[in-house]
Amino acid sequence: MRIITISREFGSGGRELGKRLADILGFDYYDREIITALAEKHDMSEEYLESVLENNFWQTVPLTYHHSFEGIPHFPAINTSLLIEQTKLLKEIAKAGKDCIIVGRNADYILNEYNPLNLFVCSSMEEKIKRCMERENDGEVLTEKKLRRKILQIDKNRAKTRDIISGKRWGYRGTYHLTVNTEGWEIKELAPVIANYATAWFQKAKKD
Amino acid sequence: MRIITISREFGSGGRELGKRLADILGFDYYDREIITALAEKHDMSEEYLESVLENNFWQTVPLTYHHSFEGIPHFPAINTSLLIEQTKLLKEIAKAGKDCIIVGRNADYILNEYNPLNLFVCSSMEEKIKRCMERENDGEVLTEKKLRRKILQIDKNRAKTRDIISGKRWGYRGTYHLTVNTEGWEIKELAPVIANYATAWFQKAKKD
Repeated sequence: MRIITISREFGSGGRELGKRLADILGFDYYDREIITALAEKHDMSEEYLESVLENNFWQTVPLTYHHSFEGIPHFPAINTSLLIEQTKLLKEIAKAGKDCIIVGRNADYILNEYNPLNLFVCSSMEEKIKRCMERENDGEVLTEKKLRRKILQIDKNRAKTRDIISGKRWGYRGTYHLTVNTEGWEIKELAPVIANYATAWFQKAKKD
Repeated sequence: MRIITISREFGSGGRELGKRLADILGFDYYDREIITALAEKHDMSEEYLESVLENNFWQTVPLTYHHSFEGIPHFPAINTSLLIEQTKLLKEIAKAGKDCIIVGRNADYILNEYNPLNLFVCSSMEEKIKRCMERENDGEVLTEKKLRRKILQIDKNRAKTRDIISGKRWGYRGTYHLTVNTEGWEIKELAPVIANYATAWFQKAKKD
């Protein structure tokens, strides 16, 4: 079984890249599906769950409790249990044994024992703002300045969540196998190139 | 004309990757050739030049003089002029108009106007130490501990030189188009994959 995890800067096109890689390689694709499953089970909104699990859960964690999220005093029990459930869900996906791509969720760390190929996707601030503006179709229109602040804030939260969960630096080159800057690329033209890399990577891994 | 620049962590295999890419793509290859030309002209040792130009020249630069290396007081005139000469040499190579790969020398920054493809190559400390041990064929044998310290020191110097020259962060994902972790790869198996990426990148750049 082959697993590709994709970590990404907000607005960098990592999600689209993941979907296209899944199409090209014939892998299953997981992103919001995990949130959706948890939301249905707990009758919570997906937005709330997203913010708890990926972006903000650390805000209630005392900083001295790095590297462990179980048994932290003052840490809302519901957040801890959601995080454990998400971890369980990810491991179930892996145990099912089908080739898959997982975007976000710190899957690179959580599924480490399955030797996933770990990609990181980044881009320039200009292109991230442009991409965010293009996909804003829910009526909420932010100014460029506010979007910039939002992008920086979400990435800061992702980095902090990651640090607390794993102790390995979010976005740091040594944490990933390949760091792809999407600046100047159409994701649909980039995807086959990364798929070619992924195929070679898994061939290599098989020999190890 | 197409230029690929390779920045790299010491011991990561960036030089070998550059050579193999040059072979596969039919590009000219520059690395020590630049140092050799300068050394011959000035009747200096290549080792001294290397340390001045890439690793240590900043040590005499007051930190308040970031982002400009001309007209810095107390900065040894010989170092400044060597750096300017190296910059001139790099620009001459670019002006010659032949496809080429340049390893190190902050070529990504210096040749920015030529829209080079900028790669960064990294690896795990374990593999960097292993690679350094394998290529130590000049009689100097360092212990693992000393090698680790040497690797960290050289990269620290490279980062500082880069910061002073360009103001853009050495090794930071946003500075490069692709960051390649060579951990677990035979460079000869990795090279065709990166060559495939480079070819696609230049096709895309042509359309822009």
